[in-house]
Amino acid sequence: MANDTTFTRADGRATNELRPVRITRGFTSNPAGSVLVEFGNTRVMCTASVEFGVPRFKRDSGEGWLTAEYAMLPSSTHERMPRESMRGKVKGRTHEISRLVGRSLRAAVDLRELGENTIAIDCDVLQADGGTRTAAITGAYVALADALAYLQEQGVVPGQPLRSPVAAISVGLINGVPCLDLPYEEDSRADVDMNVVMTEEGRFVEIQGTGEHNEFTRDELNQLLDLAEGGLQELIAKQKEALAGELN
Amino acid sequence: MANDTTFTRADGRATNELRPVRITRGFTSNPAGSVLVEFGNTRVMCTASVEFGVPRFKRDSGEGWLTAEYAMLPSSTHERMPRESMRGKVKGRTHEISRLVGRSLRAAVDLRELGENTIAIDCDVLQADGGTRTAAITGAYVALADALAYLQEQGVVPGQPLRSPVAAISVGLINGVPCLDLPYEEDSRADVDMNVVMTEEGRFVEIQGTGEHNEFTRDELNQLLDLAEGGLQELIAKQKEALAGELN
Amino acid sequence: MANDTTFTRADGRATNELRPVRITRGFTSNPAGSVLVEFGNTRVMCTASVEFGVPRFKRDSGEGWLTAEYAMLPSSTHERMPRESMRGKVKGRTHEISRLVGRSLRAAVDLRELGENTIAIDCDVLQADGGTRTAAITGAYVALADALAYLQEQGVVPGQPLRSPVAAISVGLINGVPCLDLPYEEDSRADVDMNVVMTEEGRFVEIQGTGEHNEFTRDELNQLLDLAEGGLQELIAKQKEALAGELN
Amino acid sequence: MANDTTFTRADGRATNELRPVRITRGFTSNPAGSVLVEFGNTRVMCTASVEFGVPRFKRDSGEGWLTAEYAMLPSSTHERMPRESMRGKVKGRTHEISRLVGRSLRAAVDLRELGENTIAIDCDVLQADGGTRTAAITGAYVALADALAYLQEQGVVPGQPLRSPVAAISVGLINGVPCLDLPYEEDSRADVDMNVVMTEEGRFVEIQGTGEHNEFTRDELNQLLDLAEGGLQELIAKQKEALAGELN
Amino acid sequence: MANDTTFTRADGRATNELRPVRITRGFTSNPAGSVLVEFGNTRVMCTASVEFGVPRFKRDSGEGWLTAEYAMLPSSTHERMPRESMRGKVKGRTHEISRLVGRSLRAAVDLRELGENTIAIDCDVLQADGGTRTAAITGAYVALADALAYLQEQGVVPGQPLRSPVAAISVGLINGVPCLDLPYEEDSRADVDMNVVMTEEGRFVEIQGTGEHNEFTRDELNQLLDLAEGGLQELIAKQKEALAGELN
Amino acid sequence: MANDTTFTRADGRATNELRPVRITRGFTSNPAGSVLVEFGNTRVMCTASVEFGVPRFKRDSGEGWLTAEYAMLPSSTHERMPRESMRGKVKGRTHEISRLVGRSLRAAVDLRELGENTIAIDCDVLQADGGTRTAAITGAYVALADALAYLQEQGVVPGQPLRSPVAAISVGLINGVPCLDLPYEEDSRADVDMNVVMTEEGRFVEIQGTGEHNEFTRDELNQLLDLAEGGLQELIAKQKEALAGELN
Repeated sequence: MANDTTFTRADGRATNELRPVRITRGFTSNPAGSVLVEFGNTRVMCTASVEFGVPRFKRDSGEGWLTAEYAMLPSSTHERMPRESMRGKVKGRTHEISRLVGRSLRAAVDLRELGENTIAIDCDVLQADGGTRTAAITGAYVALADALAYLQEQGVVPGQPLRSPVAAISVGLINGVPCLDLPYEEDSRADVDMNVVMTEEGRFVEIQGTGEHNEFTRDELNQLLDLAEGGLQELIAKQKEALAGELN
Repeated sequence: MANDTTFTRADGRATNELRPVRITRGFTSNPAGSVLVEFGNTRVMCTASVEFGVPRFKRDSGEGWLTAEYAMLPSSTHERMPRESMRGKVKGRTHEISRLVGRSLRAAVDLRELGENTIAIDCDVLQADGGTRTAAITGAYVALADALAYLQEQGVVPGQPLRSPVAAISVGLINGVPCLDLPYEEDSRADVDMNVVMTEEGRFVEIQGTGEHNEFTRDELNQLLDLAEGGLQELIAKQKEALAGELN
Repeated sequence: MANDTTFTRADGRATNELRPVRITRGFTSNPAGSVLVEFGNTRVMCTASVEFGVPRFKRDSGEGWLTAEYAMLPSSTHERMPRESMRGKVKGRTHEISRLVGRSLRAAVDLRELGENTIAIDCDVLQADGGTRTAAITGAYVALADALAYLQEQGVVPGQPLRSPVAAISVGLINGVPCLDLPYEEDSRADVDMNVVMTEEGRFVEIQGTGEHNEFTRDELNQLLDLAEGGLQELIAKQKEALAGELN
Repeated sequence: MANDTTFTRADGRATNELRPVRITRGFTSNPAGSVLVEFGNTRVMCTASVEFGVPRFKRDSGEGWLTAEYAMLPSSTHERMPRESMRGKVKGRTHEISRLVGRSLRAAVDLRELGENTIAIDCDVLQADGGTRTAAITGAYVALADALAYLQEQGVVPGQPLRSPVAAISVGLINGVPCLDLPYEEDSRADVDMNVVMTEEGRFVEIQGTGEHNEFTRDELNQLLDLAEGGLQELIAKQKEALAGELN
Repeated sequence: MANDTTFTRADGRATNELRPVRITRGFTSNPAGSVLVEFGNTRVMCTASVEFGVPRFKRDSGEGWLTAEYAMLPSSTHERMPRESMRGKVKGRTHEISRLVGRSLRAAVDLRELGENTIAIDCDVLQADGGTRTAAITGAYVALADALAYLQEQGVVPGQPLRSPVAAISVGLINGVPCLDLPYEEDSRADVDMNVVMTEEGRFVEIQGTGEHNEFTRDELNQLLDLAEGGLQELIAKQKEALAGELN
Repeated sequence: MANDTTFTRADGRATNELRPVRITRGFTSNPAGSVLVEFGNTRVMCTASVEFGVPRFKRDSGEGWLTAEYAMLPSSTHERMPRESMRGKVKGRTHEISRLVGRSLRAAVDLRELGENTIAIDCDVLQADGGTRTAAITGAYVALADALAYLQEQGVVPGQPLRSPVAAISVGLINGVPCLDLPYEEDSRADVDMNVVMTEEGRFVEIQGTGEHNEFTRDELNQLLDLAEGGLQELIAKQKEALAGELN
């Protein structure tokens, strides 16, 4: 690895430093859980809604289900994007991220304890500046926790479905330097881009690393994972701190 | 009209009283204009983006164009709504409101002064509690004003395209009593429901009154319009106040 | 209002004069009600079909339902329009008008008296020359009356679901002059365009006025409504006359 | 073949007798050619519209093109059919017939003589009682003739693109008896169903015979073709008679 | 008919000669029947899958059903074709052929003997060189036979649903010369193109003849049918030979 | 990690053993490159087609582009799957894999050396038994190599666009035991499932590890990657061996 030792980040952060993270619970009032999560300028509204019953493939299983949908508002990006509902088609990228969010959040819930209920996670990006999928997963865990607490209060859920926190962060190689939490400007020129989803216990839920612009070695992978693990422990602390506070 | 003189509104407002209105400029930073507008619990993000060039039917006309899209986030309503992009179809109601917003905002811009540029208005409902289309129009005017000011600063726009303020409000008959600015609970049981779009000069841009549950007389129409005109003058004052402040 | 006193209409009509109206019952034989309605050169085939049962949201309510779909044949306009089924999408305008027709006709039927049956109204424009939505509503009332009479004859409908006549007409300001029943040539250059739906008792079902090209004052609104009320009483007389005749 | 010698048709026709045929030119006024064709209770509106220019695969070929679309109005059938535009998909049957109409009418026009213009044929079934595709082809030829005459008058078309008449008829085996021009009641229970498209010179443009309910022998095929040829000569006479008259 | 006596085919075949035909049973292992059929360079994978139950219109009829879908892989043609799933629409040609395959194979199965089961035929063209629909039908019969044998072995099917063989072949006029089994190069310049589907007993299931480039006489039709009958008897012998062998 | 030391695989393979791999070049003849790749019972047809020109976002860049589409034939799975073209929608899983294949193959081509040409990769699964996406990538590299060689022969490509081999393999934890190249039966019950795409030089192009059923530790990740690296070197040897042979 040809690290560029004179490397500085445009926003002045250290390579292992997260952008300022804010988690606002009770952002809207209709869904059972509603969170605004901010990773720097990236802002995602994450909600968890409850639907009684389960999809057909889970019927009479005694277990619940969790689905997730991710989308970007047309005005969330620097150049306005066409609205997917008007095109009549969902883009591959949207599908790919929705599926990642769903798998990640299902790791945070014990479906047997949920009973035959479905949690619908919605992550709508209000403002995009890189890392929208990782902010979405991180915020959605908090919305999920609020929704499950609400369901338990209502006596709807038979058990204790919430498992330990799950958070996500991006890491990447910029000019050969491993960096944590890439904003759009870095993400678009990174050689390697990796998203890591982890539980509080340090176990991986998902690792997706892509070296489309330049492949990466096993050694670089290890450096990126070290960096990610540090950032994820910080994020999980933020999630727990947010959940410890009063709900608006 | 069989007015119910003992009538009181669930939220304690007078029949000619608006819900608390808040207009936050610079709500997001990517679009040229970005506003969060709140009518009580109804919250709509309104943005105005600029696209160079015009649709084919305006090409070489020397004039600009303005389009608008309205949508509700799936978690904005009390019961979660299916996402239109996933259904692959836009609902009739969404189309109807998008068209209303477009016509209303085109009344606020002189297309000849805009040059061959297109303004794309997006109104995304974050939280719905009745009156989303009127909040959308009212907020979008402010986003439009910010976007046009930005374009003039950039020297892109040849003239002075912004016309005087346009705002919108709902009125309706509840148990025969004309009421201003209906929240969802009132809207869903109103006999008559009317949306009025007006300019600062008191000229109507659009009137849409529907008596699906009970038709209305000419006299009732006049009472509703009187009520709307009062509310609209207040809203226009709010728009002007918001625009007089500093942009975040 | 700067009325143009020298104003004459291209087709020589007085400003408060309808185009020749023809209502042909029994236009086709498969639907329970089938009407060809003509407002001058505008020709719309309006049918009312019966479907047993009701949509899910009305199930076990004891009430019926009425839906409506409006469409233009591709060859109905001066320049052929692409067929919506081939585009795979319904245009916003089509949705908007279908919804207006549905609301207007639901005002003409007592859903409780209908029992759990659904009436499907179809309005297909064979030839378009302005005022297609108002012709559609006016003709559809007659088709609805025939369909309900048929249902009563068959013993399917428990009560007397037909309410008093509902008709619709357009009015507009042409060079500042209020005019009744605009053909395409006038409609496309009108400053203000309004569609009014009214019952025989003179109660409004729907008012939709749009001043996209030029806003309108309260005074102009009143002149337009006066004009519309006159035209609507004539149309309702035509509907009653048609229904008094023999069905082909 | 086990002919049923006691066979009589529900409508009393001889087995080689067409239903009453009516061809009304100038049925609507916007398209260059517009015809209402009736085969008994089957009624189809056939129009021919002109579009300047040709599709990409014909560009700079010096030749024109002809496309065709067939559709049934939702209320044209005994039980109302869902509208294809609302389903967002065109059914296979609709596609199949549109393609048949297109191939048949292209046999009636010399594309080189047409210049780089496109004729769009629309066949919209107002009332369906069997044989809609054959009525559509037969009527569309007349609409095409009127459209081409109009284009020649306008000086748009360089040559003489109209070729000799093309007409279509259905034949089928009912209880083993070959019958001409099947109405719906016969068509739905026919063992074999065949559509034959022929020119005035007795040359075949298209033969489509289907024995889904019961296959057919070479001998039966010959009997059916004999029957079809007789009917087609009558239809072509009707087309020529219609074209010899005054256009409304 | 102006036969070109010096006519020779590009691949050196006699005019009444089939391309080399190969039928490979057990081509894949998941479906109940799976066949690769080759007519020269045309290669189609034909499978027959079993679905328990029947579509709604057959429910409680005691009868089964058979559906068919035909498709071309995007890389099957000389120039790559856009994938229909990505376009979101199935082309008319695909629909037309799927329907033909379905009708043809339903003639090979006694639906009453099938019980309330559904056979789904899939014909996916791996390599296209003309005659894909006729190869599809011919191969699908063999896949159907294997699937029905499997169902009988499993005791699922109450009766003997397989009827006698059904095969299909194309014939056409090339420079006025009737030819059997057209490859793409001949098909694209044929004056007349006909597909014939026949049973072992020599009864026609379907005849589709198209003279878009040049109409055809009754005499030419007879020559083409003679040619087709010869080829079809050969194909049926191949089907029987394939079915007499061991299944891989 | 609680390894199950008595673990044996259903097909008797060692945990670090690939299924039998076969790569057949020249599988079909129309595309520039066409390969059938088999990993045990998984069979994927991989083709590389050439399209002159590039998508808009690459125009005038002097560089080429590569796109990829992955799809499963409806009959490729144990239970037949609905055809995506008929549903009118591509599933999220299909999109996700198509994008992975595209990114992986773009790592195998130097787009600057390709000139302004586009390679379209199609991976169509004929028979699915786990690992379809990894077989697709592995086979597509060989098809790509053949297509690029063809383009160079034709003089179309200015440079040497082919980079060193890229292959892909799945690994997973089955009852805690790391296993290479999972068939469907193992894949569906794996705790952790990972797909690894690597170049001949041992550099990673993509790593996607998912622990939806059970998260995984850093140590388990390392074991899985060791296993993958071994398998990938074997696959790359197979690719090179295939390319060293004669093309059919």
